Amino acid sequence: VITRVRGFGAAGVHCGIKYRKRDLALVLSDSPARAAGVFTTNKVTGAHVKVDREKLRRGEAQAMIINSGNANACNGKQGIQDAKKMCALAAQELGISERLVLCASTGIIGKRLPMAKIREGIRALVRRPANRWEHAARAIMTTDTKMKAAYREVAIGGRNVRMGAICKGAGMICPNMATMVCIIATDALVSKRMLKRALKGAVDASFNRISVDGDMSTNDTVIILANGRAGNREIREVGVDYRRFEGALTALCQELARMIVHDGEGASKFIEVRVGGAASEREALLIAKAIANSNLVKTAIFGEDANWGRIAAAAGRSGARVSERMDITMNGVKVVRNGVSTGREDEARERLDEEEVVLEVDAKVGKAKGFVWTCDLTYDYITENAAYEGL
Amino acid sequence: VITRVRGFGAAGVHCGIKYRKRDLALVLSDSPARAAGVFTTNKVTGAHVKVDREKLRRGEAQAMIINSGNANACNGKQGIQDAKKMCALAAQELGISERLVLCASTGIIGKRLPMAKIREGIRALVRRPANRWEHAARAIMTTDTKMKAAYREVAIGGRNVRMGAICKGAGMICPNMATMVCIIATDALVSKRMLKRALKGAVDASFNRISVDGDMSTNDTVIILANGRAGNREIREVGVDYRRFEGALTALCQELARMIVHDGEGASKFIEVRVGGAASEREALLIAKAIANSNLVKTAIFGEDANWGRIAAAAGRSGARVSERMDITMNGVKVVRNGVSTGREDEARERLDEEEVVLEVDAKVGKAKGFVWTCDLTYDYITENAAYEGL
Repeated sequence: VITRVRGFGAAGVHCGIKYRKRDLALVLSDSPARAAGVFTTNKVTGAHVKVDREKLRRGEAQAMIINSGNANACNGKQGIQDAKKMCALAAQELGISERLVLCASTGIIGKRLPMAKIREGIRALVRRPANRWEHAARAIMTTDTKMKAAYREVAIGGRNVRMGAICKGAGMICPNMATMVCIIATDALVSKRMLKRALKGAVDASFNRISVDGDMSTNDTVIILANGRAGNREIREVGVDYRRFEGALTALCQELARMIVHDGEGASKFIEVRVGGAASEREALLIAKAIANSNLVKTAIFGEDANWGRIAAAAGRSGARVSERMDITMNGVKVVRNGVSTGREDEARERLDEEEVVLEVDAKVGKAKGFVWTCDLTYDYITENAAYEGL
Repeated sequence: VITRVRGFGAAGVHCGIKYRKRDLALVLSDSPARAAGVFTTNKVTGAHVKVDREKLRRGEAQAMIINSGNANACNGKQGIQDAKKMCALAAQELGISERLVLCASTGIIGKRLPMAKIREGIRALVRRPANRWEHAARAIMTTDTKMKAAYREVAIGGRNVRMGAICKGAGMICPNMATMVCIIATDALVSKRMLKRALKGAVDASFNRISVDGDMSTNDTVIILANGRAGNREIREVGVDYRRFEGALTALCQELARMIVHDGEGASKFIEVRVGGAASEREALLIAKAIANSNLVKTAIFGEDANWGRIAAAAGRSGARVSERMDITMNGVKVVRNGVSTGREDEARERLDEEEVVLEVDAKVGKAKGFVWTCDLTYDYITENAAYEGL
């Protein structure tokens, strides 16, 4: 139902970067839209990150062209030139200003983009009917096993504001795949400043809470385009309208973020780590991330082993303050109270056969809380990553 | 040849914590020795860490009793009582002061020590001939597949100073196993202050440089006892004698640290990550650790895949300053120069079939360097850790 977002279109084609699969996508607004982006904090970044950051200073865009199969990262000046060229080619075919075209690349690091193929692909894209969101969603996939798209509506100032997004990512973050790319289209009328703020808030509470392997991509990119076609009263300040908009945007991003974790490389279980009783929100997240990124915790959950010692040890080494008298709960079963076993490990083990696992830690040093989503670590993760280029 | 260290003895027996294997060890000096220790920085610590830290304030000890199979961690006050009791029982049987007996536990977290078995085991230990270092080394093993011991001699002030150590650990660090324990015996005559300093220096350049899975144990413990029987001129300040002593101690600890990585859970390859051109030593280590702890780098090396993009991305997210124009070398083959591929990936791939892999990164922002040792991430790691308690 993303097609219901007013004034947006999308398409996806095969241009030959990948073998036989769709590998080039276009998302397009009928008219110039307000735009904002959030990017990887990795110091090594893909070429498109540099190019998009520059273009987004003006807060406006109309189209985005995305290829999969090649991350165009670690390609030096040539990479930057190729990314700019990709935007220019799309602008030319679409008959719009180059300034209004963003780009993204995802796939293998360190190989040049095949520009001739991309040129042909762009020509094919603009000839397609522009209501093929599913094709676009498929064209940005890499090791993803499932297509990822989501849709939300929210009433703002008497109008129904619509937002839809497509997304890819099967490891948060899998640097070789230069992994996470998300493009959000909304017909909301919202100021550039508020759009930027809402996107940052939504990403912090969603994509920044997920972890598949603790690695961080060079190319992670979330872009939002807002073309104002819903005709709502413009959202210009933090008020009821803004909160409804950010709330819907957060829900949309959380749905996609959960999809990424469910589709995590080799994942058999979805794990939510909830930390309470921390000294600050920052420390709650530190604890949750230490647990979520622990290979020992992740393999224990894969083995359905109520091995809370690994959780306690990960919390202890997180760098955050934790009390040795912490509580630990696994899928509702309190296995540790005041730092010692309650003897309920067998009961917890039985509950771990569920596909979603909730691990709760009360650090008992304060009142702050936080959560992180991750998945287990399995044989399939090793298989997928020990010979990625061969896949 | 550890038996050549003057005035020290050791023994190991089976007391029944583990099934049929030796699980209780004693290391003993003929006379009270100077002693120092380095412990885990995890905020959740095993009971023996608290007990030993307290005892080592005086800088003296004569014996150490160590059990495997049970970490005596997360057992609250009961755990502390049991650790103290273990020391007291050993002191009683040996006829020495309780103050002079240290203890350590390694194994599963969250289960009480079986004190009756330990009492019987201690009685058996003191009846044994005290030159059974191999028995002691075997008695402290957990998931280790090989016994770990090392020996060094160094001429100091005209005398031959000897030092020997036994050690266990097959994951640095595997919290459930509460993993790394090392006891070093030396006949050097050295002041308490210099002993502490030399141990810290040696550990920083060895055990603190290794990583199997990025997790940190609750129980990591390195203890040194120096009984002065070599009759060397006392080492009391930082001079030639001190440097020779610290140098030998560092070499001894590095040999053991390499053994731990080689025996890392599921490891098929030993990986040395060398970072140069960093802004500071601290940042060099940050970069090296980010690479060494990256599951994607570790699985690539397991797959003998010259996937330098994962190394670049790990360096980029390390938090340290790195230039995008970095150089990367894999087993002597420069695969990246000034941030872009040299096209020598196939050549590098062939060299990755060696059992030792050296990954070099020149961050090109400064002059500092550092190294870390780690191992690859394999199917066997998952097997060992998905169902640890069942093994």
